Amino acid sequence: MDAASIATQFIKFYYDTFDTNRAALAALYRPTSTLTFEGNQFNGAADIDEKIKSLPFERIKHQVGTQDFQVGPNGSLLVVVTGQIWFDEQPAPQLFSQTFTLIAENQTFYVQNDVFRLCYGV
Amino acid sequence: MDAASIATQFIKFYYDTFDTNRAALAALYRPTSTLTFEGNQFNGAADIDEKIKSLPFERIKHQVGTQDFQVGPNGSLLVVVTGQIWFDEQPAPQLFSQTFTLIAENQTFYVQNDVFRLCYGV
Repeated sequence: MDAASIATQFIKFYYDTFDTNRAALAALYRPTSTLTFEGNQFNGAADIDEKIKSLPFERIKHQVGTQDFQVGPNGSLLVVVTGQIWFDEQPAPQLFSQTFTLIAENQTFYVQNDVFRLCYGV
Repeated sequence: MDAASIATQFIKFYYDTFDTNRAALAALYRPTSTLTFEGNQFNGAADIDEKIKSLPFERIKHQVGTQDFQVGPNGSLLVVVTGQIWFDEQPAPQLFSQTFTLIAENQTFYVQNDVFRLCYGV
């Protein structure tokens, strides 16, 4: 499968899963994975899973605006997404940026790096 | 030098140079480097340099809002920046997101991956 297909399928799976059953995202991470969420760092699948599950909203919807990918260091896949998020009942979305590196493992990929930021004016 | 210092120094150097003498950014890239700029991909230092120099504005100012970094695949350094840009005489800034991977080389680092996006509502 080519890099564009992998990136596109990953992005669809990640945000669909985040918006409907985010506990299932844990399977994407490994003990070596790192998440930086709004400047706070979480190391390893267990801590990342706990952080994602504990985020303080009931409902969330991501809408992907742009998706870019490149072959990254050592054959990894670098994926960069920008878009909008709706939280709970808030009428206006917020802009976000999220960067992943994906590493091949057997016939699939796991997330080595994950950096999430809401985009605000300074 | 620790990863935080490398990331912080790189970010300062990159945007200071971009805003004052962007032709000098060419030294940061190698023949294997890739830039994706607003969805268009440029491969290798020569093409990246040409793209950066040909961007259609006279004056630009970046203001970094957030900067995150992680150790990336194979000992690379993953750097993610969000912030604002002012173009020429435009009074209102635009939000941007930029992701880099840096690779160690002798006593310094070069840019292997560079993904730039303006952040808009969808």
